Amino acid sequence: MQLSKRAVEVPASPIRRLIPYAEEAVRRGKKIYYLNIGQPDIPTPAVYFEYAEKYKPSVVAYTHSAGLMELREAFARYYAKFGVSVSPSQIIVTNGGSEAVIFAMSVVADPGDEIVVLEPFYANYAGFAHQLGIKLVPVRTYPEDGYAVPKKEKFFEVIGYRTKAIIFSNPCNPTGAVYDEAQLKTIIEVAIEKDLFIISDEVYREFVFDNYRAVSMLTFEEISNRTIVVDSISKRYSACGARIGTFVTKNKDLYAAAMKFAQARLCPSMTSQYGTIGLLTLDETYTEQVRLEYQARRDVVYEELSKIEGAVFRKPHGAFYIAAKLPIDNTENFVKFMLSEFEVDGKTTMVAPLDGFYISPNAGINEMRIAYVLNCDKLREAVKILGLGIEAYTRRMA
Amino acid sequence: MQLSKRAVEVPASPIRRLIPYAEEAVRRGKKIYYLNIGQPDIPTPAVYFEYAEKYKPSVVAYTHSAGLMELREAFARYYAKFGVSVSPSQIIVTNGGSEAVIFAMSVVADPGDEIVVLEPFYANYAGFAHQLGIKLVPVRTYPEDGYAVPKKEKFFEVIGYRTKAIIFSNPCNPTGAVYDEAQLKTIIEVAIEKDLFIISDEVYREFVFDNYRAVSMLTFEEISNRTIVVDSISKRYSACGARIGTFVTKNKDLYAAAMKFAQARLCPSMTSQYGTIGLLTLDETYTEQVRLEYQARRDVVYEELSKIEGAVFRKPHGAFYIAAKLPIDNTENFVKFMLSEFEVDGKTTMVAPLDGFYISPNAGINEMRIAYVLNCDKLREAVKILGLGIEAYTRRMA
Ligand SMILES: Cc1ncc(COP(=O)(O)O)c(C=O)c1O
Ligand SMILES: Cc1ncc(COP(=O)(O)O)c(C=O)c1O
Repeated sequence: MQLSKRAVEVPASPIRRLIPYAEEAVRRGKKIYYLNIGQPDIPTPAVYFEYAEKYKPSVVAYTHSAGLMELREAFARYYAKFGVSVSPSQIIVTNGGSEAVIFAMSVVADPGDEIVVLEPFYANYAGFAHQLGIKLVPVRTYPEDGYAVPKKEKFFEVIGYRTKAIIFSNPCNPTGAVYDEAQLKTIIEVAIEKDLFIISDEVYREFVFDNYRAVSMLTFEEISNRTIVVDSISKRYSACGARIGTFVTKNKDLYAAAMKFAQARLCPSMTSQYGTIGLLTLDETYTEQVRLEYQARRDVVYEELSKIEGAVFRKPHGAFYIAAKLPIDNTENFVKFMLSEFEVDGKTTMVAPLDGFYISPNAGINEMRIAYVLNCDKLREAVKILGLGIEAYTRRMA
Repeated sequence: MQLSKRAVEVPASPIRRLIPYAEEAVRRGKKIYYLNIGQPDIPTPAVYFEYAEKYKPSVVAYTHSAGLMELREAFARYYAKFGVSVSPSQIIVTNGGSEAVIFAMSVVADPGDEIVVLEPFYANYAGFAHQLGIKLVPVRTYPEDGYAVPKKEKFFEVIGYRTKAIIFSNPCNPTGAVYDEAQLKTIIEVAIEKDLFIISDEVYREFVFDNYRAVSMLTFEEISNRTIVVDSISKRYSACGARIGTFVTKNKDLYAAAMKFAQARLCPSMTSQYGTIGLLTLDETYTEQVRLEYQARRDVVYEELSKIEGAVFRKPHGAFYIAAKLPIDNTENFVKFMLSEFEVDGKTTMVAPLDGFYISPNAGINEMRIAYVLNCDKLREAVKILGLGIEAYTRRMA
């Protein structure tokens, strides 16, 4: 009576690994600035609750497995604003972007197959791949050039006959990188040359700064048959707990295949779907205001991080993350130090070690990710404390 | 660029296969009594909406991946009423019972492994197994003895070195069978002798009639380490669209493993979780009233079905389904006939062909399932129409 190998081997969430240290610090009365998780602090717009309350069916029944038609139509209108013309029959509403990733991986790869992933990557991709028996094959990106998409050759080095797809997020969690058209073209050319599917995770679409634009993979006609877009309202509307995402593809076969898995699990929460119809009535005024808030935060973090001698990073242009190499030996140990042994006026800062976002051995060992999910004042103080912590840790190690 | 084999080979939901015929019939103005799907007509208790509205957090954030503590505590209290003592740390709140099945299969079996299933079975088990690369191996049950659990030998015939678990629902969808302790002991002995896990799907727990009792597998101490219970509020509270279920196990390793998959997908809908806290405040008065309603319906269906000459079935004691062998050649053709060519005063009846609930070749070809999800008057008329339809179909075939 043994557990499955996939269960034993699946990595525990890297972000949650350090929670016991944080809990212990809190127990001892320390105040922690949590920059380690991507849970926005922005209030969820009231219209979510209004719509969830307005639609009170006598029976909370299973909805269509692709989601309520009204919701899919609202999503189609939303995508049209980004130059993406999709119909409701090309959209499956999912339990968060998470389930959209699971569906995408399921329809392109079998157990034993491989999917290329731009590394560092959203750590839960590894969990999903494990669950499905798929092997993730990393193509690394580096802090020195802002974690940009590497040359085609780097992809060709790892692509084999079992490689079925390329997955990445753009804007990128954890790096904050926004891939420009030239970088996306690299991915497109590789996909065409090697006959691969593309899984483009665009859940941070709106969070782009400095006039950068997050270009949806669905705008490239020449690969519309290869492309699956993963999307989510979690970050966009600060509604992570609603668990509503989308799986979008113009490839009829991919869609039909994903629908079979969608039908097996029946549907996403009806109540959350109604709430989301409400959220999708919000216009650009809302997203623009949120975008500006994150941009201001990014600027604060960038400014303060720039004062830390030896930190290697480039100004990120999207999502709400900054990844950086730190002038330390090991970020995990450093985070433990920050939680257990360091404080400034009873306060400390928690960041995420980046090694959990890599599968290449020993990669990212001295890199970290900051999620700027606190307001500017708190962020400034938090990053200052981080800088002081690095100094103290370095003295300690010396 | 090919789809995955698992995507191509996954069977489409057998219940949905005939929908186009139904849609066409409706278009032509026919009224259909839908006895084909397990979507209850009973109104969702208002307390679901009350609680979903009462808890209005400023940020609809990710909850704990195992679900809100308050909800898990409510579930633990609920289980205690059935003699099952579990703590909140043995419960994972899932996206419906569906996701609990996916977690259960994921933690006990790897791609290429096998899970024994009592056949006919809840058809979506096949979809989940396909998605996970697991092979379902059927052990058949038969209408002649009310689809009872067969002798141990029947299990031993199919169990091999790759067999990891036994899965079944009790009360059973699609047969309505309720396994008594002797039958459960058969499963328990097989599991112990062959060192297998047990996945007991108990989503119809409350729907038992004639003083039958649905015994939870969690009440058997000797196998508590092998057992995973799959549960759901969908049917119990007529809240299918809430998508709240549970994965319950006392085995710490199984729990920890499932939690890794749960963490990867983050959490179930917060709004639905709050609504469910409301539902769990309902006491036995509610479930007893619903139970009596279903029992009355079962009696009507049983009575009317008994008038159909040549139909083979035993009185079912649970869930809200009756499965039966019909005196016809092929239920799928018969259902098409009922939708396309037959009517009584502009009305017809739609049942589910049972072959979609089998994987054994040609099994269930002349069996059907009725879901008694309409009120007694409608049911009586619907089954009468079914009987007339069988006569007409038989004459046609002769
Ligand atoms: C890149 C990326 N993709 C997908 C997700 C999944 O989020 P959700 O399931 O809430 O949509 C996240 C969450 O942090 C993410 O950062
Ligand atoms: C036996 C059985 N298990 C599980 C489920 C899954 O239901 P849900 O995901 O709504 O809990 C169903 C639904 O019909 C069922 O009949």
